[in-house]
Amino acid sequence: MIERLVIFGVGLIGGSLALALREAGAVREVVGCSRNADNLREAERLGVIDRWTTSVAEAAEGADIGVLAVPLGAMGPLARDLAGCWPEDSPLTDVGSSKQAVIDAVTEGFGTTPRQFVPGHPIAGTEKSGVTAAFPGLFRDRLVILTPADATNPMASDRIAQMWQATGARVEFMTPAHHDRVLAATSHLPHVLAYTLVASLSDMSERDEIFHYAAGGFRDFTRIASSDPVVWRDICLANRAAILEVIERYQGDLEQLRGMIESADGPAIEARFRHAKETRDRFCDPADAQLDT
Amino acid sequence: MIERLVIFGVGLIGGSLALALREAGAVREVVGCSRNADNLREAERLGVIDRWTTSVAEAAEGADIGVLAVPLGAMGPLARDLAGCWPEDSPLTDVGSSKQAVIDAVTEGFGTTPRQFVPGHPIAGTEKSGVTAAFPGLFRDRLVILTPADATNPMASDRIAQMWQATGARVEFMTPAHHDRVLAATSHLPHVLAYTLVASLSDMSERDEIFHYAAGGFRDFTRIASSDPVVWRDICLANRAAILEVIERYQGDLEQLRGMIESADGPAIEARFRHAKETRDRFCDPADAQLDT
Repeated sequence: MIERLVIFGVGLIGGSLALALREAGAVREVVGCSRNADNLREAERLGVIDRWTTSVAEAAEGADIGVLAVPLGAMGPLARDLAGCWPEDSPLTDVGSSKQAVIDAVTEGFGTTPRQFVPGHPIAGTEKSGVTAAFPGLFRDRLVILTPADATNPMASDRIAQMWQATGARVEFMTPAHHDRVLAATSHLPHVLAYTLVASLSDMSERDEIFHYAAGGFRDFTRIASSDPVVWRDICLANRAAILEVIERYQGDLEQLRGMIESADGPAIEARFRHAKETRDRFCDPADAQLDT
Repeated sequence: MIERLVIFGVGLIGGSLALALREAGAVREVVGCSRNADNLREAERLGVIDRWTTSVAEAAEGADIGVLAVPLGAMGPLARDLAGCWPEDSPLTDVGSSKQAVIDAVTEGFGTTPRQFVPGHPIAGTEKSGVTAAFPGLFRDRLVILTPADATNPMASDRIAQMWQATGARVEFMTPAHHDRVLAATSHLPHVLAYTLVASLSDMSERDEIFHYAAGGFRDFTRIASSDPVVWRDICLANRAAILEVIERYQGDLEQLRGMIESADGPAIEARFRHAKETRDRFCDPADAQLDT
């Protein structure tokens, strides 16, 4: 049982975590903390948190577990505020999409990597944002990746793992650098590509018409381009090196395909598409892949 | 009432059209024709067609309306076979994703643009293919674009428009060139990008792991990369010029964003993402856009 859970930043992720732990009966009291009192009032009204404060020091008092659920760019300032007041034996975790950057920000804020800090990332979310989009089932059957730093106390890792398991999530461990590389490929790159597609089409002269004729495939493909621009700006900045690497790889592959289309090389185009389809069917829709064979 | 509908190529689109017209009571007899007898037998067994033949001449006999629902690359040879036998007063349409290329192929096959030919394109489909994926509701509330050639008989256009309306689709008219430009942007480019993403990731050394950690957003984003490779190869070849144009525009925009990330230009990244989000919310999810304001 978590006696007092403190959520810093009560949006989609922080709010859903609070709701999931409440539903599981795994938490006694949830305290919300952020700079935005209106948002906290709304979260209280929705029953996501029991009480709130805009003071980090007040929130830290008697806290059992703390969750940093603010955008990546806000992690550093928040860590500085926490440095003087966060209880030494209370695990602190975060939900940022880039792990090394959060470890660096927290380390800088505290002056050292706190032993009770367990970097984490739930692989879950929707293109919606804000506490009104929060729901308790968000993490059910989803993965949560924990990336302990060298200094992290294993007991703190265990408690954070248990917290996530109570939401219905599966927990896995990996190094921060490895997490950042994998997520750059599976999550950050697709967002970059989708944002770029919508921006690219919206600058064409037939814009209104183009969107009028967009079918379901386009809507699915661009859904992630409706994600929060600030969150994704911060991710691009925080995981810059790994993201640049996959963008460059992608640019090379796209240029190759462009060349195949330019030279009307049917067999090469088909081979490329077939390879992609087979890969996707095998990994993403194993049931469909079986049906096809 | 269509007395005898002939579907050339009974896959997802041709099969769904037959099922939709049957359900609407708008057709008396459906004849399937293709080179693949196994496929036609399956279509008959599923109740999609009443009878079938692998002979184009036999299929053309007494036909009321004909639908060319074969991959783009097969339109030319099929048109050559139809040239000597298709009844002069029976409208002929197609469902190809690139219109000028089909008009060219049919014109070459017939030696002239047939007056009864009404080029068409239903903006509908799924990443599944084949007659087993066909269902009668595929076109309900979807758009069908008709792009009559200069030679097209307006009466033939009317009958084809009525046929599609009977499936629950809305029909709009535009020029072939305009269609090809709009579809390159909204459909062909997203497919090219999604295929490239999956191919790009599948060549990374951590491939298995990368797909293991792929979340819902990734699945949505890459769903269209499970589409039929032959169909999409043909589309890339048929609508080459328009597709190259949007790829190049996209490459420029992606390179620009890459530069912003490389130089860690937060405000520029955020502005780009915000512009994309606002555009998408306005056009694709107007209800959500209203909620946000």
